[in-house]
Amino acid sequence: MTDKGSAPVARTLLQQCLQARLQVKPADDVTEAQFVQIDRGTLIYICFFKGATDDILPKMVSTLLNLRLSESDSGKMVSVLELPGSLLIVPQATLGGKCKGRAMQYHNNISKEDGLRLYGSFVALCEKELTAAASAGGGAQVAVKHGTYGNRQVLKLDTNGPYTHLMEF
Amino acid sequence: MTDKGSAPVARTLLQQCLQARLQVKPADDVTEAQFVQIDRGTLIYICFFKGATDDILPKMVSTLLNLRLSESDSGKMVSVLELPGSLLIVPQATLGGKCKGRAMQYHNNISKEDGLRLYGSFVALCEKELTAAASAGGGAQVAVKHGTYGNRQVLKLDTNGPYTHLMEF
Repeated sequence: MTDKGSAPVARTLLQQCLQARLQVKPADDVTEAQFVQIDRGTLIYICFFKGATDDILPKMVSTLLNLRLSESDSGKMVSVLELPGSLLIVPQATLGGKCKGRAMQYHNNISKEDGLRLYGSFVALCEKELTAAASAGGGAQVAVKHGTYGNRQVLKLDTNGPYTHLMEF
Repeated sequence: MTDKGSAPVARTLLQQCLQARLQVKPADDVTEAQFVQIDRGTLIYICFFKGATDDILPKMVSTLLNLRLSESDSGKMVSVLELPGSLLIVPQATLGGKCKGRAMQYHNNISKEDGLRLYGSFVALCEKELTAAASAGGGAQVAVKHGTYGNRQVLKLDTNGPYTHLMEF
């Protein structure tokens, strides 16, 4: 979490899943909608605020992937890398909302261009970490899947308890 | 949201759903697991912190149910009362976690007894508001469903975009 007094530059939300499916391309006249899917693992919803830079990403990824938030078969809490589980990363600009009256405003959210770039780097770093951990662990069948930045995130989620956690950086 | 400088006494997370199902009683030797389910509406995950009292509940319920977070059929953003949609309220103590090293700690969460009481009152207030709005709106088929405080929240969620929002009080 951020130090007291300094405004966060990123807000993430973590949920544990048995299976999760996310639309990455809506249907059109010619083709059906396309989806990505993971089985057991962690959903990471992510929103960047103004002031976020690449410097924050290694610490974010290291923290999120090593926190003991996942329940192993024996009931012990382990990290998603240790489980080992997959990741579904969902860009979620709404997480940056503040209410004004009855409406939500997103004035503190990062620009679309910077957000897209940071999101891409975040996903790439997660892929690198998960792949390294899976190789070290004997090549477990885990994957990093992710939504398309800026799209509507049509999501289907099945959990044995989402154990929702908020982490700001 | 809370005023600057004052620590929040409750953290809520809102997600929009097409359908959501929550286990309210696990299976045992004699009976099958029991579930509650809503169709279109809003999930409210809720966690109370130390210092939370009943005084905060009317404002919380009024804010959460009147925020324009739901997409109507015409694409206009309306409140869950206006939609009209159902509510699924999920007690989620993990939302109060802070990381220390690789583990999460929940030292700021309210006691189980006080949390259970506030949760019950929160659910009752939501039921009252939703029922009143539904009657005024011609008796729409909406409902308030909720999880059992302290249980594992086995959840299945289907969305057209969760539009995840964080609200603290």
